Amino acid sequence: MQVPGKNEFLSRIDRLQQSLRTQGSDGFLVTQHIALYYLTGSMQAGFAFVPTAGDATFYVRRSVDRAQDESAVRVEPLPTLRAFRPMLERDYPQLFASGRAATIATEMDVLPAQTYAKLAQLIAGGDGSVLTDGSAMIRRLRMIKSPYEIGRIEAAAAATAEALEEATAELKEGMSELALMARIEYGLRMRGHIGLMRTRSYNMEIMTGMVGAGEAAAEPSAFDGPAGGRGLGPAAPQSVSRRLISRGEPILIDIGCCIDGYVIDQTRTAVIGSLPDGLAAAYEQSVAIIREAERLMMPGTPSELLYAAAIEQAAKAGLSANFMGHGMNQVKFLGHGIGLEVDEWPVLARGFADPLEPGMTIAVEPKFTFPGRGVVGIENSYVVTDRGPRQLTKSPEKLIVVP
Amino acid sequence: MQVPGKNEFLSRIDRLQQSLRTQGSDGFLVTQHIALYYLTGSMQAGFAFVPTAGDATFYVRRSVDRAQDESAVRVEPLPTLRAFRPMLERDYPQLFASGRAATIATEMDVLPAQTYAKLAQLIAGGDGSVLTDGSAMIRRLRMIKSPYEIGRIEAAAAATAEALEEATAELKEGMSELALMARIEYGLRMRGHIGLMRTRSYNMEIMTGMVGAGEAAAEPSAFDGPAGGRGLGPAAPQSVSRRLISRGEPILIDIGCCIDGYVIDQTRTAVIGSLPDGLAAAYEQSVAIIREAERLMMPGTPSELLYAAAIEQAAKAGLSANFMGHGMNQVKFLGHGIGLEVDEWPVLARGFADPLEPGMTIAVEPKFTFPGRGVVGIENSYVVTDRGPRQLTKSPEKLIVVP
Repeated sequence: MQVPGKNEFLSRIDRLQQSLRTQGSDGFLVTQHIALYYLTGSMQAGFAFVPTAGDATFYVRRSVDRAQDESAVRVEPLPTLRAFRPMLERDYPQLFASGRAATIATEMDVLPAQTYAKLAQLIAGGDGSVLTDGSAMIRRLRMIKSPYEIGRIEAAAAATAEALEEATAELKEGMSELALMARIEYGLRMRGHIGLMRTRSYNMEIMTGMVGAGEAAAEPSAFDGPAGGRGLGPAAPQSVSRRLISRGEPILIDIGCCIDGYVIDQTRTAVIGSLPDGLAAAYEQSVAIIREAERLMMPGTPSELLYAAAIEQAAKAGLSANFMGHGMNQVKFLGHGIGLEVDEWPVLARGFADPLEPGMTIAVEPKFTFPGRGVVGIENSYVVTDRGPRQLTKSPEKLIVVP
Repeated sequence: MQVPGKNEFLSRIDRLQQSLRTQGSDGFLVTQHIALYYLTGSMQAGFAFVPTAGDATFYVRRSVDRAQDESAVRVEPLPTLRAFRPMLERDYPQLFASGRAATIATEMDVLPAQTYAKLAQLIAGGDGSVLTDGSAMIRRLRMIKSPYEIGRIEAAAAATAEALEEATAELKEGMSELALMARIEYGLRMRGHIGLMRTRSYNMEIMTGMVGAGEAAAEPSAFDGPAGGRGLGPAAPQSVSRRLISRGEPILIDIGCCIDGYVIDQTRTAVIGSLPDGLAAAYEQSVAIIREAERLMMPGTPSELLYAAAIEQAAKAGLSANFMGHGMNQVKFLGHGIGLEVDEWPVLARGFADPLEPGMTIAVEPKFTFPGRGVVGIENSYVVTDRGPRQLTKSPEKLIVVP
């Protein structure tokens, strides 16, 4: 485990404080384990408070010992939830014991309503301080990765490339999607994958992605992606199924892992024998789209432009109906940010007009879905630099062909 | 995949309607994917509405096709979120177009505050209908399992027993916790484990549990259990580490899996060679505590009584300081419900005074923590029947000894 220095975390807090000042908030109440890690370096249970200026504090329920070892900011044991507001008044008297109501941002997009209500009541205290939605602030902050973070994503990319190579060496006719995935996951786990790729969205689950063969990959699903997969049944209705892999059908391998908290996301298409003509052409089209996305991936380009360009290319190729899903199950994006979560900002989609910036890490995943036949495509992850994209994905970019 | 008949789901809805009537609510808005599956048989994306009387409806964003195949209740495509309230008025005019404000329960313990706020605004409509907290209602409903559900938990138990036996056959000195876990997980995955054990609590993650050797198992953690484990680093601070397993130290193997949506949870202690004297005695004490818990596990017994009895036994054995964690990191329960989630009700803890009932499925996990040395203990899962507990865990109940 490579652990960064304290400045890594303190500089993130500094950037959060800048945006708190811009937004006119008095502080940020951090509750999600992922954000706690991002800002303090420790994922222990508790709450962190980041004032607009001055030092942050991590109020820890458990383990206090471990938080003290890990945290870049001051740790205070939090004996009970009830003790929280009095401790804030003691530590931040200019905010919480000043007689005026403070405006505190928090992560309302992930914090459960019940816990939010409890915290809002606590924070209100005697002065009517309020908890407002700071989700966008923290998502925006996390869009820009440090060199340390990019290094961790590359470590995850290397593990994924190795595990994929090992597993596809064993790919053969009659192997199930589940068996191929189990083999990939074993390789990922042995290399330090924590076992899941964390997600921000409610009800979304990704452990290591999906392997989908033939028509099973093309089945519609609840999953907000171009290919969810058939899954193991109604209670696990995405990712792999027990379907056996046959000759001459596309095998979509959309996988990643999480190393030291950071995820990579990539897709390769494999086949035993060769792809049918129409699908081979669509695969080449996904390569063409990713080349164009790379060309556009410069600082200053609006994210949505990459999506618009891909839509246009798919249309020119006569593949609009198959691009990023099929029919009413098409998804409306080309790619997404990756980092501590797999569904980070920016999203390459209409409405995301903000310009790309150096340090953004983005998975770009052009795919074509053919109901009853399968899904083909490719996905690479990149970091945006001053000179354009640098690819983070380590797997060779090619159709994986098993004789 | 074994899929139950529609009556399985309709009878759950019927029981939910009974408790809605008791509580004076007009309906339940179901948002969590797990609850959607529990009540409709489908885990597709959308919202289900269960009125106090009459038919429920599943309003589906995606995939509508799949929901139509799976759902035991009527499916309506939900084109946009904005369309939701008008559709409710159309389908439930006596509730939503009656001029009076409706009181609708929802899962405020898992629903993010931001989504809750959006839904509350939608539901309010022109009549001021309100969304109230129905978390306890749905948790209580799910405490009592059907024969189908118990069968699925047993299927998960069988997979876990087989995977554990395969993996411990390869256990040897110098193997890492991570490598042993990767081997267990491979076996679980090949048997249909979906890859994680779903949890209800905010910030809680369990994929397959933990393997903890020697002092690494005894380290305090954020995890709300008697032994969280060292983990792979600050960004994954629980479960396995890369620590190598040595001779003569306890190896705590607290694992489970999720088959067809249902989880099992079990713990066995293993050792290469033999346990040191003090730890061997503590292990025997955990066996004695589970025997006493079995004796008490009769319908009508308050859940908290099992915890109180265990506390007393640990005290008599002079092991109070080591029971269920150590020092300020002790947890205050002996066991927990299992089902679609691993942290279900009832909890065997002070304050849970409700009597045990037939159909409850409970993991009982007496463990003793020795800082610097390790954790020993045992965990079995049971279903409460009229005649007492029936064990669901299939692994032989013994200390696993590798020569």
